[in-house]
Amino acid sequence: MPVPDAVAAAMRRTNELFTAEVALKRNVQALDQVYTSSATILPPGAPMIEGREQIKAFWGQAMTGMDVKTVSLATVRADAAGDTVVEIGRAEIVTNAGQTVGVKYVVHWKQEDGVWKWHTDIWNPNQ
Amino acid sequence: MPVPDAVAAAMRRTNELFTAEVALKRNVQALDQVYTSSATILPPGAPMIEGREQIKAFWGQAMTGMDVKTVSLATVRADAAGDTVVEIGRAEIVTNAGQTVGVKYVVHWKQEDGVWKWHTDIWNPNQ
Repeated sequence: MPVPDAVAAAMRRTNELFTAEVALKRNVQALDQVYTSSATILPPGAPMIEGREQIKAFWGQAMTGMDVKTVSLATVRADAAGDTVVEIGRAEIVTNAGQTVGVKYVVHWKQEDGVWKWHTDIWNPNQ
Repeated sequence: MPVPDAVAAAMRRTNELFTAEVALKRNVQALDQVYTSSATILPPGAPMIEGREQIKAFWGQAMTGMDVKTVSLATVRADAAGDTVVEIGRAEIVTNAGQTVGVKYVVHWKQEDGVWKWHTDIWNPNQ
């Protein structure tokens, strides 16, 4: 089922918040508006992490460790599923050292307090 | 939303088909009953793969390359989403060389021809 335009626009706003505030400015507090409070992330090379506070700690460390310059997110497919959305996407990470890393992901989106947020987030590298 | 018992049982049957027929017997034709015809998989270290025929080719090669002895799948969380299910799970792969590899995954399940199948399948290693 296709995703209504208003929902797709709300998803883009959330993604832009992640790229602008979290990736560029290391503002992990912005993750309150990106992940649901009971979200789960499944990072490659690490166990799954449950709960937004734990997720903030993960990203605070990961963004520093990777020395990220920019992150861009692009939806490949978004599928409405009841009052949720399942998205397949691609991320491109550019580091300060000039390296480009291609990543693909699946995000299960839910609305929380009227904001579309990532409830389940899993990714892996293309290479 | 919790998943009805009958759906959870149908999901287990599909997972058992994968572990018994595909992982143990290299019977990739059984994937007709595991993946939807338009399914997408997102394997770590490779681009995403769309369509069941391409997915069969991937698993045929991957199962041989990994020299898999057994695969076990366990649901960590299953969330009903409209007439679909989003599942978080853990896989344990044991190779013939005796190595154990821990993997976590997210599967977006859909019904096709009355069978619950994997429509989107992404995973990554724990270590």
